[in-house]
Amino acid sequence: MYPVEFPRNAWYVAAMSQEVSRELMSRWIMDDPICLYRRLDGAPVAMVDRCIHRQMPLSKGRLREDKLECGYHGITYDTDGRAVRIPSQDFVPPACRVRSYPLVESGGLVWIWMGEPEMADPSALPDHHWLNDASRKTIGGLLPMKARAQLLNENLLDLSHLTFLHPDSIGSEAIAELPVTTEFGDTWVRATREMNDVDCPPFFTKVMGVSGRIDRGQVAAFTAPSFHVTHVSAKPAGGGHEELCEHVVLHCITPERRTSTHYFWLVSRAYNVDDAEVDALWTHGGRNVFGQDVDACEAIEGVISAYEPSYPVELNMKVDGGPLRARRIVERLVAAERTAPDQASAETSTSQA
Amino acid sequence: MYPVEFPRNAWYVAAMSQEVSRELMSRWIMDDPICLYRRLDGAPVAMVDRCIHRQMPLSKGRLREDKLECGYHGITYDTDGRAVRIPSQDFVPPACRVRSYPLVESGGLVWIWMGEPEMADPSALPDHHWLNDASRKTIGGLLPMKARAQLLNENLLDLSHLTFLHPDSIGSEAIAELPVTTEFGDTWVRATREMNDVDCPPFFTKVMGVSGRIDRGQVAAFTAPSFHVTHVSAKPAGGGHEELCEHVVLHCITPERRTSTHYFWLVSRAYNVDDAEVDALWTHGGRNVFGQDVDACEAIEGVISAYEPSYPVELNMKVDGGPLRARRIVERLVAAERTAPDQASAETSTSQA
Amino acid sequence: MYPVEFPRNAWYVAAMSQEVSRELMSRWIMDDPICLYRRLDGAPVAMVDRCIHRQMPLSKGRLREDKLECGYHGITYDTDGRAVRIPSQDFVPPACRVRSYPLVESGGLVWIWMGEPEMADPSALPDHHWLNDASRKTIGGLLPMKARAQLLNENLLDLSHLTFLHPDSIGSEAIAELPVTTEFGDTWVRATREMNDVDCPPFFTKVMGVSGRIDRGQVAAFTAPSFHVTHVSAKPAGGGHEELCEHVVLHCITPERRTSTHYFWLVSRAYNVDDAEVDALWTHGGRNVFGQDVDACEAIEGVISAYEPSYPVELNMKVDGGPLRARRIVERLVAAERTAPDQASAETSTSQA
Repeated sequence: MYPVEFPRNAWYVAAMSQEVSRELMSRWIMDDPICLYRRLDGAPVAMVDRCIHRQMPLSKGRLREDKLECGYHGITYDTDGRAVRIPSQDFVPPACRVRSYPLVESGGLVWIWMGEPEMADPSALPDHHWLNDASRKTIGGLLPMKARAQLLNENLLDLSHLTFLHPDSIGSEAIAELPVTTEFGDTWVRATREMNDVDCPPFFTKVMGVSGRIDRGQVAAFTAPSFHVTHVSAKPAGGGHEELCEHVVLHCITPERRTSTHYFWLVSRAYNVDDAEVDALWTHGGRNVFGQDVDACEAIEGVISAYEPSYPVELNMKVDGGPLRARRIVERLVAAERTAPDQASAETSTSQA
Repeated sequence: MYPVEFPRNAWYVAAMSQEVSRELMSRWIMDDPICLYRRLDGAPVAMVDRCIHRQMPLSKGRLREDKLECGYHGITYDTDGRAVRIPSQDFVPPACRVRSYPLVESGGLVWIWMGEPEMADPSALPDHHWLNDASRKTIGGLLPMKARAQLLNENLLDLSHLTFLHPDSIGSEAIAELPVTTEFGDTWVRATREMNDVDCPPFFTKVMGVSGRIDRGQVAAFTAPSFHVTHVSAKPAGGGHEELCEHVVLHCITPERRTSTHYFWLVSRAYNVDDAEVDALWTHGGRNVFGQDVDACEAIEGVISAYEPSYPVELNMKVDGGPLRARRIVERLVAAERTAPDQASAETSTSQA
Repeated sequence: MYPVEFPRNAWYVAAMSQEVSRELMSRWIMDDPICLYRRLDGAPVAMVDRCIHRQMPLSKGRLREDKLECGYHGITYDTDGRAVRIPSQDFVPPACRVRSYPLVESGGLVWIWMGEPEMADPSALPDHHWLNDASRKTIGGLLPMKARAQLLNENLLDLSHLTFLHPDSIGSEAIAELPVTTEFGDTWVRATREMNDVDCPPFFTKVMGVSGRIDRGQVAAFTAPSFHVTHVSAKPAGGGHEELCEHVVLHCITPERRTSTHYFWLVSRAYNVDDAEVDALWTHGGRNVFGQDVDACEAIEGVISAYEPSYPVELNMKVDGGPLRARRIVERLVAAERTAPDQASAETSTSQA
């Protein structure tokens, strides 16, 4: 059964850097409404998107330099969430504050920590160093998905779906039948498929310029709770001195609500880095291919939701080793957090004002 | 209180023959998603529209001759629902199967059995022999209805509504005040209204060519759980040798979800069978008149749903004898099935994979 | 926590007079569907909008002089809700009746009593005598709001929001910081703000023709359960002989369902009464300014509903004295009705017909 809950003490991608500006922006992340903006010095800020006073979304207010003024009664918050002004009264009580969230900006992404702020450690960000590598070119996008995040987690660890879900782009008949090597640790899973002397899929020909029979490498690595790095390589079959065409896809999956998800995808390629046409092919192709994954997950969510609170029987196959391992990791991380005191849930308990 | 549940061990119309083809088609019936298609030899096939593996709708896959390949990981099912191929593995376990449903195609309709397959007996199909009578002409259609099926069951057994709901087509002032004879058995109800020397309703004039005062016969026969045959006849009042104009309407009501319904209507006439203009009048008129019934049922469902889980007081009238009898029959059939072991519900229990 | 329930033994505005005609009209009020129409003599009539027989909305029927005929089976109701005709049967049982509601028409409004009919006392209507004053001009409208009614109750008692929510129309920087005097009784709250020598807000300049520094008076008076009268006055600062510009806004808040509301606003002015341009400014300006309040309430409802059944922490400010007083009054009136026998709820209990 696909879980719907994710651990909060983890980094998630809140937004692509270019989305966050001096315009107030609202986005739900893990069932919290979040207001995002930039300070005058450019640093991103994230606060819960409801005023402590009467639940007005702060994103409907306005910026006063770095501070955020509620658009209803003017309560003004500093970037750390503490109120600094309450119109009509002199005293600002310490309880007059909203939650602010630790952020890190790196690799063209704004990363958010949804759990205990004191546990937010930038060194725990998932590896994404290639996004900061100037010799590569990265094309990315955000796909909204009306389905639970775990569906994508499992999709991305099962490479056999390429043959059937993406036959016209990155799939080919051979993939599904080739063996997979699955390795794993406490918080990661890696599925490797060496595909020697296989047909070059149509989309690779377009963006890489290779064709015919190729040796294709594909490594899908999951890092808990919801990051996937797919290393893809292709070279003419049988070896030789031809250049390796290689790209890395980073998939960042951010739960929005229980059954909806923000899906950030970023393709960083080492080939044709200055070719704007290849940029356009990946912009369109990424949206198309990863959009097929979104379509599949949404179709499945539609079936699951129709059976709730029951759940249809499911049967596991040989290819499910990796996905099921990832499922267990997510479930274990969620269970571990449940035993600890939860600051987030305490903040949403009922107030009888 | 209008029931929402229907017996599963019964035939229902799944589709009109012309709807089912080599294109995969998806339709919810009695809370099951169903994938419908035709084999190469033309025979219709119905399977539950979710893969046993990860709930992907099979209707998003593709046909491989007669077999159905899931569009996610390529698991391939034969027409009986048994998997015959699982890519990436040699062994296909017997549990790798989906539910297939017994079908019968007759009278231009594809009939489906939603209950225990071994109980599916084609001789138990409700009578529809006139649909296969070449001397008649049948015009039909499918109306989707956002209301529970039982609302139509009761609508069709109460002929007094013609005066008020269909005043411009098949209703007339006289109908509501004329006596009804109601007969019934264990699984059927029949309401008969003889209307001698009454005004010819406007729509009869159009399609039959009769007018003025007529002797009008109307018999509405309900066969459990959701079939209605309305025999309608009209001839100039006072007897004489004029030809009888007569048509039969078969109403097939298929629950989609608890409060939505597929409404198939088929008008088979014995008059003007080769007149394309009369075909067009019935195509439009059927959609119009039966659409008024759908509108009424949807309006009522809107009221009922607003009061849930409570239910507004209702008061029975003399005209409700037939409808209430049908209501009791449906409730009794549902209750009888509840006491028997239910294969369908067993299949949807939670799997902790 | 914002309450969602309101007392039923109270007058509410059902409609503006011009909305009610010989065309049957349907409107939900306090979770009851209501059918409204006028008798031939012009008097308004209100009945529950579902037939006692099978829940068909009566608003889908037709008028027979003053009587209302159900559009399904023709049961015909007199204006007091008693059935006078059941087609197909001679006897009309006394139980064949629907609820009718006491109405009063005054000030261009149709007022409805949703509780015990015998308690409906026209002298208990909230004061609105200025609506019948021919020397004034009234402009009004109805704004539908997808939020609970209490959000508007509290909005209208907190004048400090003018600065932040309506900065371009009736707000100005000074308002939020000026002291408020709050008075109250058992069923009313009054908040007074004297604003001497303040900037004239932009919209006042347009409609009143005043500008520069003004002495501005603002009194917001709440009468339980959901009426607000805002007295607004403006004159050039520092006194002198200039004429006072003064208008009265009546806000009538009618719960539709638990979290949706009909918001009637009526601005009665004593200045420029014959100026059609000022009429147009108020028609547009009222919709605009009060629409900003609706937007704020809907945004808050969106946040609250996302947290249900939990409720986010809220913190009270100095300005909340008036709003919280109104909240307590509404809660107390609802609690008082709960202890009394409730005719309305008895009528919606489940009938096992």
